[in-house]
Amino acid sequence: MRFEDGLADAAARIGAGFDARFATLPDLPLHRAMAYACGGGKCLRGYLVMEGARVHGIPDALHPAMAIEAVHAYSLVHDDLPAMDDDDLRRGHPTVHRRWDEATAILAGDALQTLGFELCLAPEAHPDAGVRADLALSLARAAGAEGMVMGQALDIAAEAADAPLDLDAIVALQRGKTGALIGWAAEAGPRLAGADPAPMRAYADALGLAFQIADDILDVEGDADAMGKAVGKDEGRNKATFVSLLGLDGAKARATSLVDDACDALSPLGPEAQGLIGAARFVIARRT
Amino acid sequence: MRFEDGLADAAARIGAGFDARFATLPDLPLHRAMAYACGGGKCLRGYLVMEGARVHGIPDALHPAMAIEAVHAYSLVHDDLPAMDDDDLRRGHPTVHRRWDEATAILAGDALQTLGFELCLAPEAHPDAGVRADLALSLARAAGAEGMVMGQALDIAAEAADAPLDLDAIVALQRGKTGALIGWAAEAGPRLAGADPAPMRAYADALGLAFQIADDILDVEGDADAMGKAVGKDEGRNKATFVSLLGLDGAKARATSLVDDACDALSPLGPEAQGLIGAARFVIARRT
Repeated sequence: MRFEDGLADAAARIGAGFDARFATLPDLPLHRAMAYACGGGKCLRGYLVMEGARVHGIPDALHPAMAIEAVHAYSLVHDDLPAMDDDDLRRGHPTVHRRWDEATAILAGDALQTLGFELCLAPEAHPDAGVRADLALSLARAAGAEGMVMGQALDIAAEAADAPLDLDAIVALQRGKTGALIGWAAEAGPRLAGADPAPMRAYADALGLAFQIADDILDVEGDADAMGKAVGKDEGRNKATFVSLLGLDGAKARATSLVDDACDALSPLGPEAQGLIGAARFVIARRT
Repeated sequence: MRFEDGLADAAARIGAGFDARFATLPDLPLHRAMAYACGGGKCLRGYLVMEGARVHGIPDALHPAMAIEAVHAYSLVHDDLPAMDDDDLRRGHPTVHRRWDEATAILAGDALQTLGFELCLAPEAHPDAGVRADLALSLARAAGAEGMVMGQALDIAAEAADAPLDLDAIVALQRGKTGALIGWAAEAGPRLAGADPAPMRAYADALGLAFQIADDILDVEGDADAMGKAVGKDEGRNKATFVSLLGLDGAKARATSLVDDACDALSPLGPEAQGLIGAARFVIARRT
């Protein structure tokens, strides 16, 4: 299957999974906001879970894929809040706190994080409870105070600091903020299969950084209408980015080189890894 | 051991556990705020975990006890935010968003929830990974969109509504908002031991409701200095409470009757349950 078709298929299955899950909840603004926040995304992280699992012989990883998308959605809802990035638009629609209110956005984000753990730990995620515990523990380590949330806190600290970050500091920040969840998604497949996680880990390390460099490039070159969110924000904030540090051409060259590294890392997985290679190429080719 | 001594002992062990855990993290405002939010509480929920485990033959339940205290702390940090209850004072000290800022409070709360799951799933929580997965899954169900967060959302919806809630609606709201985590704490012991959860579940059902009625009474009768937080808030908001619906004497009688129910539910556990009986009596006798 071509990568674009695989991604669309993953997004459709994950969307249907969320529809079924949210249909069991009462009809409160909280639950509508949770469903809203889980919709409209590319589901790249969920795709990495499902395709990484398939490559390792696990045909169904829908629940872990939904888990990472729920956690990703929670992080976006909270990141968009007025006290954080103060964004009005996400995925082409009003952010949750604009569509409802701040309290609903805080609670919906909170409950989406919880849902992520529930989905990892549900019997449907894997027949072996030990594997589920391992999966959820690794998610906690990726998402929490030493992973994603630490990256966000470093980002806030950088904005408040007098001097812009240097390259090493930005790499460290992004390893948490973007890299931790992408890394978890890529390693979920080998984890579910009890296989060696090293190829997927090396793939994700390079992919996560390439993804963030591409984000910085899109913030300069991207089209707000196509992306469904504001662009040009970094320069407005005088924030150090991969583009400000490497230049636009340097950033593009670095991202391309990282994608090559990501693809090379998959060689032990053989021709089955074509979809994952497509995902890596997509990360720097995307316009949104 | 007298209940008061047992509670102080549990709080000291949980506090030392958090000190050790946070000492491994870098020294960022995020991590200082997390540690701050976990300090100064009574640790009643953690006590219920540890004492409920001890009664069922499990001598060490420190990690699950820390887990519920981390999740409780997260819920307080977010509940205190300006968009939620907008509180300046908690446990006698400035709330996290007053001591630091809103972004730090949002992120610290987020990472404390994650930490709660990490603590449940860490090998130290229980030697059997299946038990850890079950423990964490039940925590997700208690804390999320069908448990605690739903109770908070119903509370917000009630404040926005024209008509105050009736008694059934308040009971349903509190069963989520306060009852879900107390219930999890009480059931953690039998869960860790693979024992019948029914006595602890019945105990927690009555205890959780008594706890909330006592909170409403303290909001009327309590002393802000002793409690370390604002009082008289419910009346100022014209909010339906157990006191406004049952009267002060009626609320006290109901709480006392519920505590009797809670103690009766423990009879299958025999004389070992004295500490838990003490906890139930404490819930309505406390001044803070």
